[in-house]
Amino acid sequence: MGNVTIRTLAEELKVSVATVSKAFRDSHEISAVTKQRVLDLAARLNYVPHPYAGSLRKRTSKTIAVVLPEVADSFFSLAINGIEAMAQEKGYHVLIYLTHESFEKEKGVLKDLQSGRVDGVLMSVTSETVASHHIQELYGTGMPVVFFDRICDDVATAKITTNDSEAAYLATQHLIERGCRKIGLLSVSDSLSISHRRTEGFLRALQNGNRPFTAADVVLCSNDAAKNYAVIKKRLASRHRPDGFVATVEKLITPVYTACADLGLSVPGDVKVVGFSNLPTATILNPSLTTVTQPAFEMGKAAAGTLLKALNKSFFRLENESAVIPSVLEIRESTKSA
Amino acid sequence: MGNVTIRTLAEELKVSVATVSKAFRDSHEISAVTKQRVLDLAARLNYVPHPYAGSLRKRTSKTIAVVLPEVADSFFSLAINGIEAMAQEKGYHVLIYLTHESFEKEKGVLKDLQSGRVDGVLMSVTSETVASHHIQELYGTGMPVVFFDRICDDVATAKITTNDSEAAYLATQHLIERGCRKIGLLSVSDSLSISHRRTEGFLRALQNGNRPFTAADVVLCSNDAAKNYAVIKKRLASRHRPDGFVATVEKLITPVYTACADLGLSVPGDVKVVGFSNLPTATILNPSLTTVTQPAFEMGKAAAGTLLKALNKSFFRLENESAVIPSVLEIRESTKSA
Repeated sequence: MGNVTIRTLAEELKVSVATVSKAFRDSHEISAVTKQRVLDLAARLNYVPHPYAGSLRKRTSKTIAVVLPEVADSFFSLAINGIEAMAQEKGYHVLIYLTHESFEKEKGVLKDLQSGRVDGVLMSVTSETVASHHIQELYGTGMPVVFFDRICDDVATAKITTNDSEAAYLATQHLIERGCRKIGLLSVSDSLSISHRRTEGFLRALQNGNRPFTAADVVLCSNDAAKNYAVIKKRLASRHRPDGFVATVEKLITPVYTACADLGLSVPGDVKVVGFSNLPTATILNPSLTTVTQPAFEMGKAAAGTLLKALNKSFFRLENESAVIPSVLEIRESTKSA
Repeated sequence: MGNVTIRTLAEELKVSVATVSKAFRDSHEISAVTKQRVLDLAARLNYVPHPYAGSLRKRTSKTIAVVLPEVADSFFSLAINGIEAMAQEKGYHVLIYLTHESFEKEKGVLKDLQSGRVDGVLMSVTSETVASHHIQELYGTGMPVVFFDRICDDVATAKITTNDSEAAYLATQHLIERGCRKIGLLSVSDSLSISHRRTEGFLRALQNGNRPFTAADVVLCSNDAAKNYAVIKKRLASRHRPDGFVATVEKLITPVYTACADLGLSVPGDVKVVGFSNLPTATILNPSLTTVTQPAFEMGKAAAGTLLKALNKSFFRLENESAVIPSVLEIRESTKSA
């Protein structure tokens, strides 16, 4: 039932797609009885008709939606700039919808987008997103969807990602080379594709470096800054204190630095830190932060470029258009050897 | 000609508003000739009809637009969170449009919003915005508009601001108290309302503190990070080097810190710095940054609350609903006395 399209309705009612379209446009070319049958079935099947008369077939809103968890993270603000640069070049408007890391909110936004106010959708899922039914449903209505960064593996469309596993591997290996003996991973979600990949790269580097590993070495954080500070501080105050951290999300940098300072631990003397981050302040932190710098602007631009290409061709297989753009390890003071 | 509404068209053509509305909905209840007369006049007067049949009168998109310059600044990302919190409470969707500090882009977005895809608009203007005709035009179509932070004085609607002049006064006075003898102001625009007010507060504090002032003490920066670094470095290398800076925009913090470091100047030993900023990393910078912290979340929430109140009342005078929410000076290491 997920993939109800205008065609589903037409087939179910044994009328033409044009007739269904006319019913939604309240056209006088079809009878009141037919109109009512279409509307009744649409209501039963939870199908939201397209509000722009005419663009049902032609896609003329010249607008794309970007659905993403937040803008307080510099990755997303840079990705938006990349998306807008491409959209502007091609004469498209960009609408931004924020899900605030809420799966319910994401479902609501995608439902709203079924009404067809946009021609296509770029998205990065929330850290709560555990199923893709809502995305499949939108995609099934014929709406082109392209993922960037945080993807759902099981939706057969283009995915623009970075080499998360490899980047986490290199970051962890760097900490091993700099003498860390007990490395912790700060993560935010056990459902996100990027979290899985970063954890996978982290574990692979520990294994290759013959470093022991316990479940406590992966510290699961949340979207609550105060709780993150508390959980990181507790870990740093424990008997088996880590001497290195890979922070997989930018917003975990401030709590790590603050917890170290409050416990009298020096960065990098006692604890070395690498962060996945595009913070413009990384170079002026105390100490400056070694980062895994993601190609945020480039990923946004590539995702928008792929979507706009699809919008301007009649037949285009989005699932063949995935791309991986590598991240870069930028070494600074926070991982300096003693 | 700015205020063309559906009523203007009706009066001009000596037909009813309902007839004009029917022409735009392509209704079969009016003649083809009348329909064409309406469409021709609309085209001549540059009037964009509302694409949602039905919501022309009822405002039922349950969506508000936020038009703002960028999201890479933590003020705007926090303000968005405040807007979304209020919108969610009242059951509204939020669409975000970015103008990237371009006046042309802002005009394009407002033109697009005339099509009525949203019920109301929250906006913060670009640093290039020197006229308000495009806003007056949208407002004149009956679309409620509420400003937050960066306003146009001459549009008679609600403005949610902070006490920019007073906050700049207190920041400058703080630098004087900490022993600064030559204070510079880092600004980004000479057209923005907030820039005027911050400059005014800065000059007033210098005057009250009997500090001499020359035109060179206001350093005009841009949206180009490399140029900002160069212009700040040049000022710091000059014979009359400032020993204190008030940075009126967050993105100027990294160039100031970097230019000081590259010239071998210590912050706060040689140069003290206060920044208008909501950076989550302010406390972990080297040194931690004294900030004018704006009530970003609260301003966003208040602006959205005012707009949504207006949307749910038949008669509501937005121009009576302005509010000023004070900023707070948070003193940290970057302004410490020797």
